[in-house]
Amino acid sequence: MSPPRGPLSQLRRGHEELVLGLLRKHGPLSRGELGKLCRLSRTTLYDILAELVATGAVVPAGQQDDGPRGRGRPAETLALNPGAGQAIGIDFARRALHVAAVNLAHEIVGAASEPHDADLPWERRVDLAERLIGRLGGGDLRLGALSAIGAGVVGPISDPDGGPDGDIESDFENDIEAGEPLPHRAQVLLRERFGVPVLLDNNTRLAALGEAIWGAAAGGRDVLYLRLSHGVGGGLVIDGSLHRGAYGLSGEFGHIVVDPGGRPCSCGGTGCLETVASVRAVLDAYRDRGGHADDVRDLVEAAGRAEPGALALLAEVGADIGAVLAALCNAVGPGVIVIGGELAETGAALLAPIGRTLDARVMPISRHRVSLRRATLGEAAGALGGIALVLHESPLLSRYPAGPDLAAGVPPLSPRHHNLVKEGS
Amino acid sequence: MSPPRGPLSQLRRGHEELVLGLLRKHGPLSRGELGKLCRLSRTTLYDILAELVATGAVVPAGQQDDGPRGRGRPAETLALNPGAGQAIGIDFARRALHVAAVNLAHEIVGAASEPHDADLPWERRVDLAERLIGRLGGGDLRLGALSAIGAGVVGPISDPDGGPDGDIESDFENDIEAGEPLPHRAQVLLRERFGVPVLLDNNTRLAALGEAIWGAAAGGRDVLYLRLSHGVGGGLVIDGSLHRGAYGLSGEFGHIVVDPGGRPCSCGGTGCLETVASVRAVLDAYRDRGGHADDVRDLVEAAGRAEPGALALLAEVGADIGAVLAALCNAVGPGVIVIGGELAETGAALLAPIGRTLDARVMPISRHRVSLRRATLGEAAGALGGIALVLHESPLLSRYPAGPDLAAGVPPLSPRHHNLVKEGS
Repeated sequence: MSPPRGPLSQLRRGHEELVLGLLRKHGPLSRGELGKLCRLSRTTLYDILAELVATGAVVPAGQQDDGPRGRGRPAETLALNPGAGQAIGIDFARRALHVAAVNLAHEIVGAASEPHDADLPWERRVDLAERLIGRLGGGDLRLGALSAIGAGVVGPISDPDGGPDGDIESDFENDIEAGEPLPHRAQVLLRERFGVPVLLDNNTRLAALGEAIWGAAAGGRDVLYLRLSHGVGGGLVIDGSLHRGAYGLSGEFGHIVVDPGGRPCSCGGTGCLETVASVRAVLDAYRDRGGHADDVRDLVEAAGRAEPGALALLAEVGADIGAVLAALCNAVGPGVIVIGGELAETGAALLAPIGRTLDARVMPISRHRVSLRRATLGEAAGALGGIALVLHESPLLSRYPAGPDLAAGVPPLSPRHHNLVKEGS
Repeated sequence: MSPPRGPLSQLRRGHEELVLGLLRKHGPLSRGELGKLCRLSRTTLYDILAELVATGAVVPAGQQDDGPRGRGRPAETLALNPGAGQAIGIDFARRALHVAAVNLAHEIVGAASEPHDADLPWERRVDLAERLIGRLGGGDLRLGALSAIGAGVVGPISDPDGGPDGDIESDFENDIEAGEPLPHRAQVLLRERFGVPVLLDNNTRLAALGEAIWGAAAGGRDVLYLRLSHGVGGGLVIDGSLHRGAYGLSGEFGHIVVDPGGRPCSCGGTGCLETVASVRAVLDAYRDRGGHADDVRDLVEAAGRAEPGALALLAEVGADIGAVLAALCNAVGPGVIVIGGELAETGAALLAPIGRTLDARVMPISRHRVSLRRATLGEAAGALGGIALVLHESPLLSRYPAGPDLAAGVPPLSPRHHNLVKEGS
């Protein structure tokens, strides 16, 4: 559960952010200099500093060398801890694990992925995560400075801080498929293994946050992300924050009905978008029409050489997707729509028909106000979103004001990271 | 345009809210008592208090009568200004004007409505607003203490502070029907007439905010409001705040396509929900099938006596509405859906079929997690939403922390207000 958010705890968090911001801007400062700059009372400032030192966010940084001389001993200065502020993002996808990490400067120091069987137990997944993380940044990531982990899992999550005692997950236990690992199991194991707080969210929603902050919609405050993969899902970033919804089930675009008389869906519904736009649904339809495709790469290849059957099918699928997106645009008004997942690799063969139906069906006054883009972060999106979640939720890690200004203040991906994502995916 | 939101200005606003909150909780306090309670430095506190006194939010309240004696003269106390903090909400609907006002304690002191012709010029509408406001609270509303106005208008608005020089409105000038009054005209006239800041938003979205704070969804943090009136529209309250979208066009549920081969819509699209679920569309369909209804009251009456033709038609309309709501529930995950507008007066004849299709089409795991309710604020919803907008955007007026805690902290409507709404509508 979240800590109480009364005015006083909000104010304390504001004070911490102010002090950290001053140390980022000015470098090492004495307590006296901090006092002048932050205008807090001496007692309050010393309280805040004591806590920041205790958590390791701030460290003593030697004595002042440019102060006025002959007025007693030079004052000790404080600085941001260069080893603190690390955060790790982990995406526990159904059949693969993705990890990424940032240092205190919030530069991505590495990202990596590894496929695994869908029935791999949580203990083994966490082993795998530990191994992959150990290899990040050339193997010299110092985990002693790790501050928090943001982890994405399959399934509904409503409270990023909710532990195994929270009400939220247990609400859904009966709804989760038999044998499906419970999301909070990952949280417990990671907390035991790494000894830091673990924030949890749905991995597709985290991918939406990743794309909105570092990816195709970087800087966008209202972003709709749709992932076309083995499942069809997505996420909404609203006014710069990841939207969870009242019961943790927002972004379920794949279960919007497009054909009430259509096929049964894994969710128990009928004719959901997922029944026509998932990888399996599209491949099945392609084969039913005499196309040859063992996997999505064959379909991408067929679309690439403009095979008429593939283009016709993707046009139909794109029309269904565009109709759903048009309805959501009228309702939510996103500035950017990002299409991700394996099927997005078919490129214009799918995105062009999506755009045509979106234009035809959205309110005419909204036409051309929405930008439709392909995702850019690939498989790393969920893990990067996990990092973004940590930076957003944890005041001691954040260099940005909470909430509204998050997306605006985040620096673009460094070239170094681009390489690493490529390497990892 | 909004003031800059750097950490320091955010912090200052936090300090003001803290001081105002302490005065609300404890009543009159001396500067020394305030200093102990708020933990700000003396300089910062005195700065904040000087500004609060200058703006009239805080006034001297006599000398302390229960302090320790014999230790110098008693300290002067400060209190909230009982005459300040008034806010007015105005809903400039197409064919009627609705006003409401709150005092410093944020108690509704009155609400009133008056119908007018659709082509009434803005000058005359503002005259009418002034007359209606003058009659509120038995005519003794002291407008000298007015702090701000929140006004709702028909059409797209993206920035509540955006004046006539803002970019937003002019973006849409070419899109607005010829002869349609420009929204910012109302803002300019009100500002001239009342001499206070005027916040502007779409009136249906304001009704959503009103219902989420004082109405059917009071206390709800994620609320979807659908209005079935001469037009069909709505609004989303997301995490306690009114959602505007990237270009000011969110909540346009009436223009979600339900029948791609259907009738042309006023928006320029085809087969929108509005073409089947607006008052006119439903009345036309009822008459086409041999029903007799001069206006929506006749239809409400027919539904009330279970006339089979009316029930069958409302079942069809309800199914279309329910399908749209199911899609939006999967995407946004609201905890409460509120149905307002004249057609909602048909009651269960419409809400039951809406609920049936909603249940059938929403993801099975989400079923029964959403509460479907009829709006409770009637015609006053938009004006009350205008007040909520002011309380939300203006720190000196707000008794609530900005943002996340808005809805949670707002008191329920007083019985006094219920009477006044009734009287006014």
